[in-house]
Amino acid sequence: MTATDGADLRVTPEQLEVWRLFIRVHARVLRRLEADLQEYHGMSLAWYDVLARLLEADERRLRMTELAERVMLSPSGLTRLVDRMADDGLVRRVQAEGDGRGYFAVLTDAGYERLRETSGTHLRGIREYVVGRFSDDELRTVAELLKRVDE
Amino acid sequence: MTATDGADLRVTPEQLEVWRLFIRVHARVLRRLEADLQEYHGMSLAWYDVLARLLEADERRLRMTELAERVMLSPSGLTRLVDRMADDGLVRRVQAEGDGRGYFAVLTDAGYERLRETSGTHLRGIREYVVGRFSDDELRTVAELLKRVDE
Repeated sequence: MTATDGADLRVTPEQLEVWRLFIRVHARVLRRLEADLQEYHGMSLAWYDVLARLLEADERRLRMTELAERVMLSPSGLTRLVDRMADDGLVRRVQAEGDGRGYFAVLTDAGYERLRETSGTHLRGIREYVVGRFSDDELRTVAELLKRVDE
Repeated sequence: MTATDGADLRVTPEQLEVWRLFIRVHARVLRRLEADLQEYHGMSLAWYDVLARLLEADERRLRMTELAERVMLSPSGLTRLVDRMADDGLVRRVQAEGDGRGYFAVLTDAGYERLRETSGTHLRGIREYVVGRFSDDELRTVAELLKRVDE
């Protein structure tokens, strides 16, 4: 990198504003989704995320390391979370066969039931706060622009 | 709400895909920004955020409660973070005058210097991973669509 690269490296005020808007919108939407889950079901968004990721997984179970990555928590943070959810009977921790170190988190029937009770609230939020605000055409544009960042 | 509202409450597969793309893109970008700060400066994005929010603030200081909100951390999480940053000399904690309970976090000269050293890396990431991927026209469209969600 040389000094003449400077011009290319600038972030314009317009670019910076869009970046900040992106961060703010993400935070605001997640706060709203969290507030609704807490208000109507006394549950956190992190718990919902764990239940939803397990439901999608083969045999409704995931390695703790894989689950941590999918819900974007540190391994130690996820361990604490899953321990509390296990106390409530929503997940079980099961040692992986033939692997002394590995653990799986498994969705229980009670966990499935809890997800079924809460998903309406969560989906309503996603629609009301985000995707329901766009027409079909706009939604396609949003997808296209997001994919540009997803490369 | 009645049963006939059902149709309006549906989240279509296209909508759900856009929602998931939004969450994934946000996570991916933040992971990249974090990785760059760690690799080049051995600093976390959370530390960068604290320094940047303090620099923007009047007199380079913020109440801990206000700072927690701006960097989207729990009060206890922020306290731990600020304690570690204070050990490194990047911020100071100062008791609010006439308010036995309140504390401010204040940016130190060393903290300002650290921000100056690291901001090039951070801004380069914002440009390279996000805003630099759009033309001026597209950037205006992105802003417009994000503002729809920011209401």
